[in-house]
Amino acid sequence: MPAIQSREIRLKSRPEGTPAAENFELASAESPSPGPGMVQVQNLWMSVDPYMRGRMYDRPSYVPPFQLGEALQGHAIGKVIESGDPDFQPGDIVSHMLGWREYVTGPKALFTKIDAAGIPLQAFLGVMGMPGMTAYCGFLEIGAPKPGETVFVSGAAGAVGSLVCQIAKIKGCKVVASCGSDEKAARLKSVGVDHVVNYKTAPDLLAAVRAAAPQGIDIYFDNVGGEHLEVALELARPGGRFAECGMISQYNATEPTPGPRNLVYIVGKSLKVQGFIVSNYASMQGQFLSEMGGWIKAGKIRWEETVMEGIAKAPEAFIGLFSGANAGKMLVKLA
Amino acid sequence: MPAIQSREIRLKSRPEGTPAAENFELASAESPSPGPGMVQVQNLWMSVDPYMRGRMYDRPSYVPPFQLGEALQGHAIGKVIESGDPDFQPGDIVSHMLGWREYVTGPKALFTKIDAAGIPLQAFLGVMGMPGMTAYCGFLEIGAPKPGETVFVSGAAGAVGSLVCQIAKIKGCKVVASCGSDEKAARLKSVGVDHVVNYKTAPDLLAAVRAAAPQGIDIYFDNVGGEHLEVALELARPGGRFAECGMISQYNATEPTPGPRNLVYIVGKSLKVQGFIVSNYASMQGQFLSEMGGWIKAGKIRWEETVMEGIAKAPEAFIGLFSGANAGKMLVKLA
Repeated sequence: MPAIQSREIRLKSRPEGTPAAENFELASAESPSPGPGMVQVQNLWMSVDPYMRGRMYDRPSYVPPFQLGEALQGHAIGKVIESGDPDFQPGDIVSHMLGWREYVTGPKALFTKIDAAGIPLQAFLGVMGMPGMTAYCGFLEIGAPKPGETVFVSGAAGAVGSLVCQIAKIKGCKVVASCGSDEKAARLKSVGVDHVVNYKTAPDLLAAVRAAAPQGIDIYFDNVGGEHLEVALELARPGGRFAECGMISQYNATEPTPGPRNLVYIVGKSLKVQGFIVSNYASMQGQFLSEMGGWIKAGKIRWEETVMEGIAKAPEAFIGLFSGANAGKMLVKLA
Repeated sequence: MPAIQSREIRLKSRPEGTPAAENFELASAESPSPGPGMVQVQNLWMSVDPYMRGRMYDRPSYVPPFQLGEALQGHAIGKVIESGDPDFQPGDIVSHMLGWREYVTGPKALFTKIDAAGIPLQAFLGVMGMPGMTAYCGFLEIGAPKPGETVFVSGAAGAVGSLVCQIAKIKGCKVVASCGSDEKAARLKSVGVDHVVNYKTAPDLLAAVRAAAPQGIDIYFDNVGGEHLEVALELARPGGRFAECGMISQYNATEPTPGPRNLVYIVGKSLKVQGFIVSNYASMQGQFLSEMGGWIKAGKIRWEETVMEGIAKAPEAFIGLFSGANAGKMLVKLA
């Protein structure tokens, strides 16, 4: 078969502050016919996630930085269209890390076959994928929730946060959540969250969270950092656990931003503030897929998606993460 | 027997910022002859410790605030002079929490007999007491050191820090320490610390610690907070553990001080930042006394004391903690 022309999104320049359209460019590249041991995949869905912002800085991190002039990378779900290896057949559905492009040809080790079993494919980029596993492992392993405890979740309307809220309810906790619009707040209430604070309209975030959790909080699941973290430190009960999943309020800072003024509570209240990335918990993947799949089938977990269509929309989808344009998982549908 | 006049130090006013002599007053009270179930003790040694600063604020904490006009409290070692209970005999040596006074009469439950077994009595306020157990439990339980790892200890010349350095060496770690004078630095080198940074004279603390630990740090034992914590976050290796024992740089702040500007590393490097107080590890006391006692007898642990004489000197001893007037454990000898 001839090579296929594949459109892709490249990093044109490193963002200063909040990413903008000019930092990205749409280009075309060849996806060659697969040789022996290779697979050619048409991407159906791709994911944009806040952590990708970190890879746009040219600095050492837990994942290497994106290179200028090259296609970005990220989770995607695709369909095998041609295979040079007997382990893959045309039509197989695969999960992989080479999103931000329409077609990809690569060695078979890069692709993992998935059995969707009635679950929509794009859920494997969300509730059954990396965000789901991030919520599940971070909350259960670091939070170690006990029934009756109070959990505070920031960025609660996002792909990870909304799942943390629901897992916390399944575990018998009281859940206080923050989000950035009344519409998101209403959705969080509809999935069982006890109290929701709109941080954009609350005149005093600390007072609002304190009113919702007058006895204090036992677990803080942090997606936001900054003022939210300061509020959580103030309201934490002794022995509190902080699952530090993200600090999106800091990702676009052009100058170093001072941290909370009350870190000394970490000592006095014996707090555990534990950062994590999902790959720390790779060994839990089987348990996660099994338990989350069960909750989904039992109707205990609901999720939302914000979908943009076509590879050209991927930068807009990504940039939208930082203004809260998404409810739940932000996705780009490619085919 | 008649009551004994006992001099004591009372909290006269709550310090604003760094404590000053005017915040304390020397007064006299009666230590009554003990009734049934009571014991009367002459204090021989009392301890002053940085954590006491927190109890001088009128705010909720893990220990209740000191009351104005009343004698302060803290660890002390004393000798029973009269007993109303058969479990205690005159001459028994006891440990208790009613320091800052020359004599004390109280119910027997407040006093714990100690068997010094050849160890100087005042060591039970230091290496064999609360500071020793703080170093031992915090470093081993939170730090979980492995041979060959690099440990950074701030406030390393203090009662806790100097023991953490030596325990880390016993465990086969490389130790980088910070302290506030060249004399203290020389002493730390003499007990085996690999690299010592004088934070008061180093033109760039980050550069100095980085030069001493070019591969980064695996464990940070924090007594200081503030800039030291920011440096540790910058140099931490992925999976690093921070034992948050104290933040003495923050204790006298009259206005909230912003925290480190690089807390986002907690997420990206999967750091565990765990605050603690020694009472969390009460169940480890037997293990601590046994292992630390063994190290002392084997000559593996050395310690220093800074001793002031007489109850009237207690405020000066306490205030001196915040200017680094102590090398090792700061003590007041009362008799």
